[in-house]
Amino acid sequence: MKILIIGGDGYLGWPTAMFLAKKKYQVFLTDNFSKRKIESENGIKPLQPIETLSNRVYTWNNLGKKKGYGKIRLISGDILNQRFLNKLLKNVKPDHIIHYGEQPSAPYSMMGREQAVYSQYNNIIGSLNLLFGVKGICPKSHIIKLGSMGIYGTPNIDIEEGYLKLKHKGRFDKVLFPMKPHSFYHLSKAADSLNLDFVCRVWGLKATDLHQGVVYGVNTKETIMNNNLVTSFHYDHIFGTVLNRFMVQAVCGSPLTIYGSGNQKRTFLNINDTLKCIELAIKKPAKYGEYKVRNQFTEVFDINELAQLVEVSAKELGIKVKIKKIKNPRTELSKHYYKPSNKSFLEIGLKPVYLNKKFIKETILYIQKYKVNIDKKILDPKIKWKN
Amino acid sequence: MKILIIGGDGYLGWPTAMFLAKKKYQVFLTDNFSKRKIESENGIKPLQPIETLSNRVYTWNNLGKKKGYGKIRLISGDILNQRFLNKLLKNVKPDHIIHYGEQPSAPYSMMGREQAVYSQYNNIIGSLNLLFGVKGICPKSHIIKLGSMGIYGTPNIDIEEGYLKLKHKGRFDKVLFPMKPHSFYHLSKAADSLNLDFVCRVWGLKATDLHQGVVYGVNTKETIMNNNLVTSFHYDHIFGTVLNRFMVQAVCGSPLTIYGSGNQKRTFLNINDTLKCIELAIKKPAKYGEYKVRNQFTEVFDINELAQLVEVSAKELGIKVKIKKIKNPRTELSKHYYKPSNKSFLEIGLKPVYLNKKFIKETILYIQKYKVNIDKKILDPKIKWKN
Repeated sequence: MKILIIGGDGYLGWPTAMFLAKKKYQVFLTDNFSKRKIESENGIKPLQPIETLSNRVYTWNNLGKKKGYGKIRLISGDILNQRFLNKLLKNVKPDHIIHYGEQPSAPYSMMGREQAVYSQYNNIIGSLNLLFGVKGICPKSHIIKLGSMGIYGTPNIDIEEGYLKLKHKGRFDKVLFPMKPHSFYHLSKAADSLNLDFVCRVWGLKATDLHQGVVYGVNTKETIMNNNLVTSFHYDHIFGTVLNRFMVQAVCGSPLTIYGSGNQKRTFLNINDTLKCIELAIKKPAKYGEYKVRNQFTEVFDINELAQLVEVSAKELGIKVKIKKIKNPRTELSKHYYKPSNKSFLEIGLKPVYLNKKFIKETILYIQKYKVNIDKKILDPKIKWKN
Repeated sequence: MKILIIGGDGYLGWPTAMFLAKKKYQVFLTDNFSKRKIESENGIKPLQPIETLSNRVYTWNNLGKKKGYGKIRLISGDILNQRFLNKLLKNVKPDHIIHYGEQPSAPYSMMGREQAVYSQYNNIIGSLNLLFGVKGICPKSHIIKLGSMGIYGTPNIDIEEGYLKLKHKGRFDKVLFPMKPHSFYHLSKAADSLNLDFVCRVWGLKATDLHQGVVYGVNTKETIMNNNLVTSFHYDHIFGTVLNRFMVQAVCGSPLTIYGSGNQKRTFLNINDTLKCIELAIKKPAKYGEYKVRNQFTEVFDINELAQLVEVSAKELGIKVKIKKIKNPRTELSKHYYKPSNKSFLEIGLKPVYLNKKFIKETILYIQKYKVNIDKKILDPKIKWKN
């Protein structure tokens, strides 16, 4: 079974590659390294230094040879370049394509015009290239596209998975769930989803759109095998997600900064559950002509709950933590209804790892090993949604 | 009152410019002439030769000076070039921006990868540039964006204007009306709409999205004033809309070609009603922070009805017309429910010009004057939605 991962250098792409290779999938990786470029431009880096992707692949393949794991093959390039992409698809003929290859930061997309345009151009046009590549070269490939729970916004009704059955003036229909994205980044995911739905309807391609929540954690069974295999743990204001940032703030003695009221609710999942979900999406693919949507998260928290959980967990390790509310740099509802469904993955066998104090304490201990690397200057939000 | 028209060289942009200038609005035009480029690439041209935009503006201003009409100012350029656009916005500081400046053909967007990418890149990124330009330079400008009825698709429920009030599992919300666009072109309009809604919500801009139906007709009070002032009448398979094409087929003795069953229903309006709607949208602008949506059409027809109407009208002129059903090159439902609302413009005073035999006969007589120009090779559809 051949799997092509686009965005294989990323926080999730790389652990997914190893997770699948270990299970004997044939894994092919590509990346345009735009995230490393954005890191450099903004003076940010992951907590623990990460190796070049070539060295990570080299280390994995050496280690794996002895242990009988599958090999990972790296073909670097940019899917915005259709000639590169078509050659790649022709050579690999993947059974599944896992498309992580997008600019992944909402704050980055809100920095200014250039960044908003880059986010939408890179994400929408790159994905559009992929759809044409698959149609022309490998129409049997199942496209697994990483979407975002953020495309739904925070509606006053329950959020279903991709579709909504509705009754209006006595008539019925099943439609794509209405979208109200949070940022230009999330808007790019919304446009992707509409394009993806269209090519399934019209060309008969098969695709799964995974609307993922906020991922936390850093270690997987594979990343801890060797120092060269770690994935990027970001705690900065551009790529850092809220729980990862809180744990770093706890370690370096900075207050946990809550944006606004802290009552805003979001969906979350452990990085290890991301990997399990991806494999489940492979095992239960969409049918030809089907645009399948799965909401990929395991729990809902508000930001205050997360801060309090970090506070009590840190306390058990003897770390005293302060919580500080700051003006919300984002435009979002401070109090709202939020009830998204995540039945789809539970029904096909996901056994979630739920967030608890044990996990937070373990992660804090991991972060402490790299405490010297923490750059406090990159913690506080500098990007405002409205200025 | 200063009006900036983006896409001022187009089928609708140019008549809009004259219509408003005559009413003493100060009109500023821009265009990147990409439609003329696409015409050349595909060997197509409008029925009646049209002048360069500079000559049309020159003619109007000469004529208008004597009659006391407003002046039109032309500043050619591309809104994909942010430096050009920002300078333009800074110099003009428009009260209203009428944004026609998009690749307007659904079949063109379905030709292949390059055309799909161009359509989405030009339309989405150009519009995104405009939103940033307005935010930074003239946030008081009211953006009037031309959308499309085709973003709704043909749902099994009544189509409301932009929003849908719904009840789901006992809870209520008002959401953007679900989208199911017909083509990569319509998908670009959907992405535009989501971006537009976002900047109204988050930045407090004011915008009106006009989801327009299929426009027919060619002559307005202004275009007929002088041969240099005509607008482009397309009957070809790329830019030609269905009713205009039928009338040309009637004149040149080709059968009226119906794609598929002919039972597919669409929304229509006369070119003169487009102009009236634009002025109404100016007079009843959105409020700050409001994303206002109006469905811009006057009537619903299925394709068979239109063909029959052309047939009987032509007969009264002594022209015998054949109707021929051909395999539908598009992917669309052949039979479906269709009940879109167009209350919004009627409520603010639109008095529609309805389609009738008199109009068709007049247009056929107009077309006959240019019969020698008809190129039969460009009539039949060559672009398939799925191949």
